[in-house]
Amino acid sequence: MGRLTHVAIFTWKPETTEAQRAALCDGLAALPGLIPAIRSYRFGADAGLVVGNDQFAVVADFDDAEAYWRYAADPRHVDVVERLLKPMLRTRHAIQFTPSEDGVGASEP
Amino acid sequence: MGRLTHVAIFTWKPETTEAQRAALCDGLAALPGLIPAIRSYRFGADAGLVVGNDQFAVVADFDDAEAYWRYAADPRHVDVVERLLKPMLRTRHAIQFTPSEDGVGASEP
Repeated sequence: MGRLTHVAIFTWKPETTEAQRAALCDGLAALPGLIPAIRSYRFGADAGLVVGNDQFAVVADFDDAEAYWRYAADPRHVDVVERLLKPMLRTRHAIQFTPSEDGVGASEP
Repeated sequence: MGRLTHVAIFTWKPETTEAQRAALCDGLAALPGLIPAIRSYRFGADAGLVVGNDQFAVVADFDDAEAYWRYAADPRHVDVVERLLKPMLRTRHAIQFTPSEDGVGASEP
């Protein structure tokens, strides 16, 4: 588990197609193999359990803030964002935090 | 790692105090010891790396949707939400998803 967790939650434009969603998932799935700064990378579409949820999330772990910036600036990541994600994007909410260790202690800014 | 990941991202009311933030973190930190359905539980305040971020996140892993519901309905969790979180709450964005395995395969709804 990295020492910095990045979380982003998205909603998509109504006209977003299944092909666009699939292409985004394929693009994201390739990133951990391309960007060594990524310690852990998970993403997925909302499971539909709760009404009012957003639609998609990415949870990524990094060793530190510098590693997060390497990921954010990596051209392979930027390409997925610009070419595959942004055309679908309606809303995005994100945060990077130093995670509590499974309930042992909490992170304060 | 559980098979269902719950992510929630929050912003707080401007009048929220440091004491309220600390009480919320203490309340959340106790939950993994009280609710066996929780497989992994991480939370924290935004690290301040990126302008425009939200302010706080919780990332929790469960074995399945049924375990997520046990957590959501557990009175110790409901108490933290009602007594500590809601008085601070401005916005909340959440999702539950079956995570991709670190880039190997993607989750589709």
